[in-house]
Amino acid sequence: MTKRAYNFNAGPAALPLEVLEQAQSEFVEFRGSGMSIMEMSHRGAIYEGVHNETKQLLTELLGIPEGYQILFLQGGASTQFAMIPMNFLQGRTGSYVMTGSWADKAVKEAKNFGSTHIAASSEANQFRSIPSLDTFNVPEDSAYLHITSNETIEGTQFQQYPDAGSVPLIADLSSDIMSRPLDVSQFAMIYAGAQKNLGPSGVTVVIVRDDFITEVPKTVPTMFRYETHVKNNSLYNTPPAYSIYMVNLVLQWIKGKGGLAGIERQNREKSGLIYQAIDASGGFYNGFAEKDSRSMMNITFRLQNEELEKKFVKASEAEGFVGLKGHRSVGGLRASAYNAVPYESCKALAQFMAEFQRTNG
Amino acid sequence: MTKRAYNFNAGPAALPLEVLEQAQSEFVEFRGSGMSIMEMSHRGAIYEGVHNETKQLLTELLGIPEGYQILFLQGGASTQFAMIPMNFLQGRTGSYVMTGSWADKAVKEAKNFGSTHIAASSEANQFRSIPSLDTFNVPEDSAYLHITSNETIEGTQFQQYPDAGSVPLIADLSSDIMSRPLDVSQFAMIYAGAQKNLGPSGVTVVIVRDDFITEVPKTVPTMFRYETHVKNNSLYNTPPAYSIYMVNLVLQWIKGKGGLAGIERQNREKSGLIYQAIDASGGFYNGFAEKDSRSMMNITFRLQNEELEKKFVKASEAEGFVGLKGHRSVGGLRASAYNAVPYESCKALAQFMAEFQRTNG
Repeated sequence: MTKRAYNFNAGPAALPLEVLEQAQSEFVEFRGSGMSIMEMSHRGAIYEGVHNETKQLLTELLGIPEGYQILFLQGGASTQFAMIPMNFLQGRTGSYVMTGSWADKAVKEAKNFGSTHIAASSEANQFRSIPSLDTFNVPEDSAYLHITSNETIEGTQFQQYPDAGSVPLIADLSSDIMSRPLDVSQFAMIYAGAQKNLGPSGVTVVIVRDDFITEVPKTVPTMFRYETHVKNNSLYNTPPAYSIYMVNLVLQWIKGKGGLAGIERQNREKSGLIYQAIDASGGFYNGFAEKDSRSMMNITFRLQNEELEKKFVKASEAEGFVGLKGHRSVGGLRASAYNAVPYESCKALAQFMAEFQRTNG
Repeated sequence: MTKRAYNFNAGPAALPLEVLEQAQSEFVEFRGSGMSIMEMSHRGAIYEGVHNETKQLLTELLGIPEGYQILFLQGGASTQFAMIPMNFLQGRTGSYVMTGSWADKAVKEAKNFGSTHIAASSEANQFRSIPSLDTFNVPEDSAYLHITSNETIEGTQFQQYPDAGSVPLIADLSSDIMSRPLDVSQFAMIYAGAQKNLGPSGVTVVIVRDDFITEVPKTVPTMFRYETHVKNNSLYNTPPAYSIYMVNLVLQWIKGKGGLAGIERQNREKSGLIYQAIDASGGFYNGFAEKDSRSMMNITFRLQNEELEKKFVKASEAEGFVGLKGHRSVGGLRASAYNAVPYESCKALAQFMAEFQRTNG
């Protein structure tokens, strides 16, 4: 068996080795059924058991209160950017917090379906921070307030969520869902593409409050109405069954790690190692995000010049690190330390950073 | 190892055992990379290699001519039912051939975006046949003519495709793509959810002629424009990478079986065994579809009464058969004998049918 890579990919990203090994062991023959779970009807008892258990695990781990629906959709957060205004805007104003690349994409799709209002923005400092909650300006007649909990590209993360009063709060949690405890009752809707903290790509988890789902114009296609999927337990059409099964295994793994409180403790330690390597470097490494907005998931930093950054990436790859090159729109380096990235990988990275500084400082 | 089930599921459906075994062997550790293919960036060289090779295999096996684009989308055929009129109708008339349950769903979504015209229908005989091509009435100003190549629920299949003259032909090939040779140049667009003949659920293959993709109103969301995915090689957002990888393996398997000509020969033999069991039963089994419209993929039949049908399902399950209950909207029995269903399973079913008749006839 080859050595596992130190996988810091931004998404699709590392999965727990125990989860991969379990999935491998039951890949061809699923629990005595004579077939793979990939070969099963989505309307059969075995698959439906997995489907419903996955909802149950989400409910348990996130403490989802009564009155919320859990959906498994396709098309990633990019599809949600359109479905949200299609379902909830209907000519009204959607308020958005502009925190970076992903928030920007969400706003753009909403413009097709109504007007948009920027409730707060950190564009002035190149999205290095989450705007201070006391600067938020949310018109009371907004259809919703949309936030991006964690900006994967810039490496910023909400430390606390805003209280939007009577305005329903929607959060894109694609890159930090299940990374720390969450009070779901603060939100009218949360959503997350699975491929960072939940499983492989191909499924999007949506958690939406019953009373937020209202009647939608008939011109919204059946597949793009939340209502369709609520009524059919996400089985209106064939779901991405294998991705949902993998989410199930990842959730069981999180449960075994002490749930979200346990996971948060690990995530703090893991990201702490890397931020410490940055802060202790005397300016050799410079964090991109402001300290009060730093993400536990995506740690972004720069070196003195691009040449040195390229050298860092190349040297890191030679040592078995994967995915450390920053996103092209921000440059520099990025270490994505999602739930499934082991502590040992983060420790190895911190050591590598110190060593690289010693030989190139 | 448990015995493999005789899997006649309608979709998700049987996959080739060799494919499952290969995927299992490289599930945790993909070809020396130190990680699973599920954990890889969709913008990295290894995944992109698989992605592009899958397109190459489709091109080779289907003989796709120059001037066509191959896309990997999400949301199944149900999402295509909406995307087609969103992209191509724009207030014009879409012509549809009404062959059954799936055609009906496609028409319904189009009504939101323009007018629809029924070019031919077999509703009068409960969709037991594909309408004769010489009865087709396709207005010349139709934006397109849409057909459903194979109706999974009723068990009918086009034996030849219509020539719509200057009207672009679109075909839903979800349940019979890659089951026989196809002249792609007859079509402006074909599409297929993967979960019958191509792989697991979670990816939809779209093959579309360049000159058919025209400018789309700005009100169509980015994710629902074919143009977006054409420009980005289906990597605008994170693709359902694992499903695409599985499609790759299934296509390699088809290539090893002599391509589509070889597969068609097997499919004729396989479905022939079951149709023969029906036709030789002296009316104990009655085929639902008219003989000239019979599907090689989904073989639908009835027994004298529902009680006997229930007994058949129960007895078949005791013998290791899976998925033989007909769809609730048609009733009776259905054997879905897609590409990956082994000859031995069809032979076992034919024998079981004879035996069941002997003891219950």
